[in-house]
Amino acid sequence: MEMEDKILLAHGSGGYMTNKLIEKVILKHLNNEILASLGDSARMELEGQRICFTTDSYTVDPIFFPGGDIGSLSVYGTVNDLAVSGAKPLFLSLSFILEEGLGIKTLKKILTSISTACREAGVKIVTGDTKVVPKNKGDRIYINTSGIGLYNYPEKIGPERISPGDVIILNDTMGEHGISVLLARENFGIQAEILSDSQPLNLLIEKIKESRGEIHCMRDATRGGVGTILLELASQSGMDFDIDETRLPIKPEVQGVCEILGLDPLYIACEGRFLLFCPEERADTILSLMKNHVKGARPEIIGRVAGQGTGRVLLRTSIGGMREIDLPDGELIPRIC
Amino acid sequence: MEMEDKILLAHGSGGYMTNKLIEKVILKHLNNEILASLGDSARMELEGQRICFTTDSYTVDPIFFPGGDIGSLSVYGTVNDLAVSGAKPLFLSLSFILEEGLGIKTLKKILTSISTACREAGVKIVTGDTKVVPKNKGDRIYINTSGIGLYNYPEKIGPERISPGDVIILNDTMGEHGISVLLARENFGIQAEILSDSQPLNLLIEKIKESRGEIHCMRDATRGGVGTILLELASQSGMDFDIDETRLPIKPEVQGVCEILGLDPLYIACEGRFLLFCPEERADTILSLMKNHVKGARPEIIGRVAGQGTGRVLLRTSIGGMREIDLPDGELIPRIC
Repeated sequence: MEMEDKILLAHGSGGYMTNKLIEKVILKHLNNEILASLGDSARMELEGQRICFTTDSYTVDPIFFPGGDIGSLSVYGTVNDLAVSGAKPLFLSLSFILEEGLGIKTLKKILTSISTACREAGVKIVTGDTKVVPKNKGDRIYINTSGIGLYNYPEKIGPERISPGDVIILNDTMGEHGISVLLARENFGIQAEILSDSQPLNLLIEKIKESRGEIHCMRDATRGGVGTILLELASQSGMDFDIDETRLPIKPEVQGVCEILGLDPLYIACEGRFLLFCPEERADTILSLMKNHVKGARPEIIGRVAGQGTGRVLLRTSIGGMREIDLPDGELIPRIC
Repeated sequence: MEMEDKILLAHGSGGYMTNKLIEKVILKHLNNEILASLGDSARMELEGQRICFTTDSYTVDPIFFPGGDIGSLSVYGTVNDLAVSGAKPLFLSLSFILEEGLGIKTLKKILTSISTACREAGVKIVTGDTKVVPKNKGDRIYINTSGIGLYNYPEKIGPERISPGDVIILNDTMGEHGISVLLARENFGIQAEILSDSQPLNLLIEKIKESRGEIHCMRDATRGGVGTILLELASQSGMDFDIDETRLPIKPEVQGVCEILGLDPLYIACEGRFLLFCPEERADTILSLMKNHVKGARPEIIGRVAGQGTGRVLLRTSIGGMREIDLPDGELIPRIC
């Protein structure tokens, strides 16, 4: 497919169009070996220390949604990118693009949320910037956070470590974040109490790292949801994955809203969910750490690494069939992060 | 003065209103000792290594202007914040907020400029992010870069080191960046060929660091210009500064445009200019390094640290008078970075 000549909303969806934009346009101009690995964060040597570095701009609409807001999201999102890379998040930067006319009260509410989120995740904001743009050149507030973490795990964690036979664990139910933002934004007339799953994952991941034994790979299921992350990791590792649809944890109310709106929950963004790949014998320990970390968590082994392959993700459906899943095209739900 | 209840364009000006927003609203919610120092970048210990970390969002309008564009600006701006902090810039993150409808060609042109700027400054983009917002919720492209540098200087460099008798050196002429952006944006009917002074300062600063002897403080004169930076440093160091107006280097065409438009060049943003405070005996070496670094550069000793005081900046005017300068209120020139 040819590259379009203009940026479309779909280029920000996290799906096929985003990948194409990154690979055909951005990486082509900026390639270097660290950036090209396309992990959740970059891993570099700095005078013998292994540090991780990541960045994210947050443009979520609406800025307040059930279970969170753009402030806490911008802390947890960046903290989680570091944590799933195997790093202990330490320092964040914070940069605002404020639209003229934003209420100072609103800004204060977001700052309070940022401050609380930092305390919860155990990170510090150490540097910042504030810009103001005229009305209709922004949307109340956009936030960029970048984060630095210390890579404190003895082995490498990443897609190149994914091995045949690995179990694939999802720490909790899918899709609450995307659906909660969507319902807060659009007036579908749907009555459902769905809270965003936005939460920091670093404390849980530190516990998992401290438990003895291997972790091969972790990634958070944000833009594009669990399905997109599975496809990315299958492609990057060159393995085929077998996923059991009946084991995908999902809350009935999320399932219900997805059915009404014709959305596939496999591609709905989460902000407190991650996939973990490890040898089977490690699964019990990790599942029990996940279960005990948050009340009511429903971690599941959602599938296995079938073996060397061509990066295919096969879904065993509830009626016994098999289908190969693909990257979603088009818009999904825009501006969920 | 009471805090306004809405964000105004003037809150992004770099002047009095920006300071008030940062101090009364942002720092109040996020205070910690590293952030509170409000330097160009944060200095932290990471396992025995001293690293610097900084962030900036770039919203310049127009995105292309004589002598630069938003791409090169977003590299040099962040590189310079690290350099004036005393750090050697190494790694950058790059995050785009793209407005729906932006031409892919335009994006490619900006990426080429980013790539060239990174090569020139000797830094690497190691991590990135791309978001897309709907039409009229952005302005073609906003860029955030955050940067990590290694603090490789034996002593501390910062406002707390500024000492009575220090000379204050400005590396080159004032105000070209702000005026070039302003003329590219507005249709004043003024014919003037003024190129932005946007450039990386890190290679020059490394040379100055390598030359023997002390450097007490450096800061780049970006938003708010030389005047605002002098006031910030006087206030942070608790010293009074004596500035000689006749020594302030300025190109006649910039002076001319400022006179026509009623602007004070002391407050016009630069993007390749910095102030350096050092003992007088160091001045000759540093001036000559500055002179030899860029063809036609006009470094000047613009003043001296008078002594302990109350953070006043006194300007000795060309007609022999003295006036105390103050932070500009209101808008200055919005969106120059």
